[in-house]
Amino acid sequence: MTQGGIEAAIKAAAATVEESLEALLPKGEGPEKRVFEAMRYGTLNGGKRLRPFLVLTGADLFDVPREQSLRVAAATEFVHCYSLVHDDLPAMDDDDLRRGKPTTHIEYDEATAILAGDGLLTLAFEVLTEPATHRSGEVRADLALSMARAIGAHGMVGGQMFDLQAEKLDLDIGAVTRLQQMKTGALIAYASEAGAILGQASAEGRQALRMYAHDVGLAFQIADDLLDEEGAEEEVGKKVGKDAEAGKATFVSLLGVERARSQAEMLAEQAGKHLDLFGERADLLRLIARFVVERRT
Amino acid sequence: MTQGGIEAAIKAAAATVEESLEALLPKGEGPEKRVFEAMRYGTLNGGKRLRPFLVLTGADLFDVPREQSLRVAAATEFVHCYSLVHDDLPAMDDDDLRRGKPTTHIEYDEATAILAGDGLLTLAFEVLTEPATHRSGEVRADLALSMARAIGAHGMVGGQMFDLQAEKLDLDIGAVTRLQQMKTGALIAYASEAGAILGQASAEGRQALRMYAHDVGLAFQIADDLLDEEGAEEEVGKKVGKDAEAGKATFVSLLGVERARSQAEMLAEQAGKHLDLFGERADLLRLIARFVVERRT
Repeated sequence: MTQGGIEAAIKAAAATVEESLEALLPKGEGPEKRVFEAMRYGTLNGGKRLRPFLVLTGADLFDVPREQSLRVAAATEFVHCYSLVHDDLPAMDDDDLRRGKPTTHIEYDEATAILAGDGLLTLAFEVLTEPATHRSGEVRADLALSMARAIGAHGMVGGQMFDLQAEKLDLDIGAVTRLQQMKTGALIAYASEAGAILGQASAEGRQALRMYAHDVGLAFQIADDLLDEEGAEEEVGKKVGKDAEAGKATFVSLLGVERARSQAEMLAEQAGKHLDLFGERADLLRLIARFVVERRT
Repeated sequence: MTQGGIEAAIKAAAATVEESLEALLPKGEGPEKRVFEAMRYGTLNGGKRLRPFLVLTGADLFDVPREQSLRVAAATEFVHCYSLVHDDLPAMDDDDLRRGKPTTHIEYDEATAILAGDGLLTLAFEVLTEPATHRSGEVRADLALSMARAIGAHGMVGGQMFDLQAEKLDLDIGAVTRLQQMKTGALIAYASEAGAILGQASAEGRQALRMYAHDVGLAFQIADDLLDEEGAEEEVGKKVGKDAEAGKATFVSLLGVERARSQAEMLAEQAGKHLDLFGERADLLRLIARFVVERRT
C-alpha cells in the first residue's frame, strides 16, 4: 500500500467511525439538550480519527468483529475529544480555533464546554462497559481499566498538568519524552493495545502491540513538534509556533529539525519491527507508523 | 438506634472511608504532582461521606466483604468530589468557599481544578474496574456501567446543565423534581444500589434498593433546599440563600416550607417501606432516610 493508499484507508475508516460516534452520542430534548449539542460539536468536527484507526487496525489482527472494535474506537475518540475541549479552555491552553472552527467554549460557553468534556469522558466508560462491546465482563472491565490508567493522573491528565508547568521548567530531552508519553503517548498506546484486549490476545501479542504503540506515540509527537515549527497556520487549522513562542522545550528545540526528523523516522521503523511475530498481517500497522511521521497536517 | 447513634455511625464509617480515599489517591513527585495535590485537596476536606455510607450500608445487606465495598464507596465519593470541584468553578456556580475552606480553584488555580476534577472522575472508574473490587469481571463492568449511566449526560452532567439553564426557565414542581433527580438523585441512587451489584443480589433486591434510593435522593434534595432557605451560613459552611437570590425555583419556593418539609418526611417514610423484604436487616438504611431529612447541615 502506498502513502496515498493509507490516507484513503484512514479516510474510509473515519467515515465508518463517524457513524458510530453519531449513533453513540446523546440526543434528546429538554434543558439539558445544550450539553448534548456541545458534546456533538466537540466530537463531530471532521477529525482525522487516527486513534480509532489504530484501534480498528489492531483489532483486525485478532479477527475482532467490527461492531465491537468500532465501539472501542468511538470510546477512544470520545476521550481524545474530551481532552481537546478541556485543553482549549481559557484557563488551560486558551485556544479559540480547532480544525479551522471555533472551539467548543467559543461556540457555546465555558460552563457548557466543561460539562461537555465531562460528559464525553463519562460516555467513553459507558460505551466500553456495555455488554455490546464484548460478551465477557472480564474484557469489558479490562478495557475500562486500561483506559482509566492511560488517561488519569499518572497518564494524560498528569501530562497536561506537566505541560502547563513546562514553561517554568528547564526540560531536557528525557523530561520532554516523559511529558509527551503521558500527555499524548498513553492514549495512543491504549488505542494500539485495545484490539489485543478485545481479541483476548496472548501476553506476548499484547506486549508487542504495546511496544509498537510506545514508539508510534513518540514518533507522532515529534512529528507534531515538526509541524508546529514548520507548518503553515492555514494548513494545520490551528495556531502554530505557539510552543516556541511560549519558550517551551520541544523535541525540535532540543534536537533541531534534522535530528528530530531522523529520530521520528527511526522510531517508526522500530515500531514496525516490534510486530514481527504477526508477519505480513501487521503491514497496515507498519504503514500507519510511517504515515504518522510523514503526514503534513 | 437513635438520631445521635446514626450520626456516630456515619462518623465512624467516614473515618474508615477517609483511609481508603487517602490510600487510593495518587501521590508522587514530578511536575504533575500539583494535580495529585489538588485531587487530594478536593477530596480530603472533611466531607460527611454520606454517599459512601449508603454504599457500605447497602453492601452489608448482602454480606459483601468490607474491603470491596470500601473501594466502591471511595469511587462514589471521588465522583461526588469531582462534581463539586467542577461545579464550583467561576464559569459554573462560581463558589469560593466549600465546607468553610477555599474551593480548589481558589486554593490552586482554574486549570488545576479542571484537571483535578478530570483526574478524580477517571480515578473512580479505575478503582471500580480493578480486580481488587470484585473477582468477577461482570460485576466490575456492571459497577462501572451503572456509574457511567448515573453521572453522564442523561444523569448528573445533564442535571448540572439543566440547573445552569434553570434561572432562565419557569420550572414547575415536575421539572424541579426531574432536575434534582438528574443532578443529585442519580448518584445517590447509584450509591444505594452499588451494594446490590457487589452482592450479586436478585433483581428483586436490586429493584427494592433502587426505589429506596429514588425516594431518599429526592428527600435529600428537599432537605437541602430547606437548609438553603433556613440555614445559617456559618452552620452549613457554604453560601446559603443563593438559589432564592438567583430567582431559581426550588422545592421550597414552589411548595413553601411547611409542605416541603412534610413531603420530605413522607418520602423518607416511603423509602423505608421499599425495604420490607429485607426485614430488620435494613433498619440502618431506614434510619439513614430519616437522618437525611432531619440533618441540620
